[in-house]
Amino acid sequence: MFVARRERLIEWGDCDPARIVFNPRYFEWFDGCTAHVFASAGFPKESLFERYGFAGWPLVETRAEFLKPCRFGETVIIESSVVAFRRSSFDVTHRLSNAGELAVEAFETRVWTIRHPDDPNRLKGEPVPQDVIARLSAT
Amino acid sequence: MFVARRERLIEWGDCDPARIVFNPRYFEWFDGCTAHVFASAGFPKESLFERYGFAGWPLVETRAEFLKPCRFGETVIIESSVVAFRRSSFDVTHRLSNAGELAVEAFETRVWTIRHPDDPNRLKGEPVPQDVIARLSAT
Amino acid sequence: MFVARRERLIEWGDCDPARIVFNPRYFEWFDGCTAHVFASAGFPKESLFERYGFAGWPLVETRAEFLKPCRFGETVIIESSVVAFRRSSFDVTHRLSNAGELAVEAFETRVWTIRHPDDPNRLKGEPVPQDVIARLSAT
Amino acid sequence: MFVARRERLIEWGDCDPARIVFNPRYFEWFDGCTAHVFASAGFPKESLFERYGFAGWPLVETRAEFLKPCRFGETVIIESSVVAFRRSSFDVTHRLSNAGELAVEAFETRVWTIRHPDDPNRLKGEPVPQDVIARLSAT
Repeated sequence: MFVARRERLIEWGDCDPARIVFNPRYFEWFDGCTAHVFASAGFPKESLFERYGFAGWPLVETRAEFLKPCRFGETVIIESSVVAFRRSSFDVTHRLSNAGELAVEAFETRVWTIRHPDDPNRLKGEPVPQDVIARLSAT
Repeated sequence: MFVARRERLIEWGDCDPARIVFNPRYFEWFDGCTAHVFASAGFPKESLFERYGFAGWPLVETRAEFLKPCRFGETVIIESSVVAFRRSSFDVTHRLSNAGELAVEAFETRVWTIRHPDDPNRLKGEPVPQDVIARLSAT
Repeated sequence: MFVARRERLIEWGDCDPARIVFNPRYFEWFDGCTAHVFASAGFPKESLFERYGFAGWPLVETRAEFLKPCRFGETVIIESSVVAFRRSSFDVTHRLSNAGELAVEAFETRVWTIRHPDDPNRLKGEPVPQDVIARLSAT
Repeated sequence: MFVARRERLIEWGDCDPARIVFNPRYFEWFDGCTAHVFASAGFPKESLFERYGFAGWPLVETRAEFLKPCRFGETVIIESSVVAFRRSSFDVTHRLSNAGELAVEAFETRVWTIRHPDDPNRLKGEPVPQDVIARLSAT
């Protein structure tokens, strides 16, 4: 299983009046981290459009647990992996740690989509390409 | 159970290159909707600081299911309630519908906090005030 | 000159650890207010794509003055107008007031674009449609 | 004059349905870059609160020119400097370049603040500390 790792400095504007990270920010970062897993395995998201007719991997479901607050000026580490592939959906986990302690743990189910052939404004689930699955499942 | 309702126009900047709402935006709106439930019941968040020494209600856990994408120019409705109170934590649900269909359903556990007496930079869980519970649980 | 007006409650997540609005939020709101001016005059942005082959009105230049901070729980009013049309660019002003006092004043130059005929990933300036100019310049 | 430099990958969620960076994102990045200039010179923002009773450096004025759009998957470079110090205000410039070309140029005036002695919810301008000025003005 492929694990991609990212470091991130928590900025002033990431934090709310309680001086801790405003929770939607974590979901912004996790969205970028999912792209980072694929990019690290040789599939940068911006290359997928032409290569596979890809249109995005919208979230179907997410869960997150916030174990410790993170504060302005701290540097956190996020480790992300695709933990399961099904036909057109896949699961991603993100573990964010701060000073060596797990602070946020998140789980996502996403679906691989293409533009709907009948209506380019709509998305349609599509099987995840086999080479993508192979590379991301490799040890 | 108290249900608060909010309407929201989806803006250009809420959407990503797939032309659907970028998922962290939903969590921003839900955060505002939680405050809206309390405000609608007579407890505007900005009044809680002085009234109760309150310091915020950080998320402990959240889950969301994304059933249908929402697009730029659509107006959605979000219905929110506090569905359970425990000692210092409480659960909130948000149901976002678009053109009469449920599009996103979310569940949050939050904790009522005050400033830590030993360190004003830290937060500390505190029992939710009884009058808050009484008003928000009333039918 | 057409003036569109919007009210907005300042939310917890709009504010930073200094407990005032984090400045990029104002630019998010102004972006929505520009769309609101056009929508109020009969040109909702989401209708422009099909009607005119429109692809967006990216910012070319902006300036803003922040005269008074705005805080969580306050309700502000934003008044916006298109103050000048040139061939493919146009100027918008936004005046945000809080409790009757001007708090932020902003000025934008934007350009009306279509998809580049040679490369759909690129945008290309295009004269603003005459009926749009006529309606938005009317007194 | 001290120049701090940051690299940034443009993420999917930074972009709007026109597939270019949504403009408020630039202001988020510039806010972080201003902190980065001070941190690079030995004054991390999170250290200023205790060291100087500092409460933030809110924007008083900003201007930006958007010369070229930036797209998802591109890596941009931002070079930032404090170009002038006055009594309690100071000016910062940010030059964002993409593939060797200047894409965005921004100018900020900010004010150094402390908590108002009569009301901790208000901010008050305060002279920028001399050691901060000395270090950031050094060649």
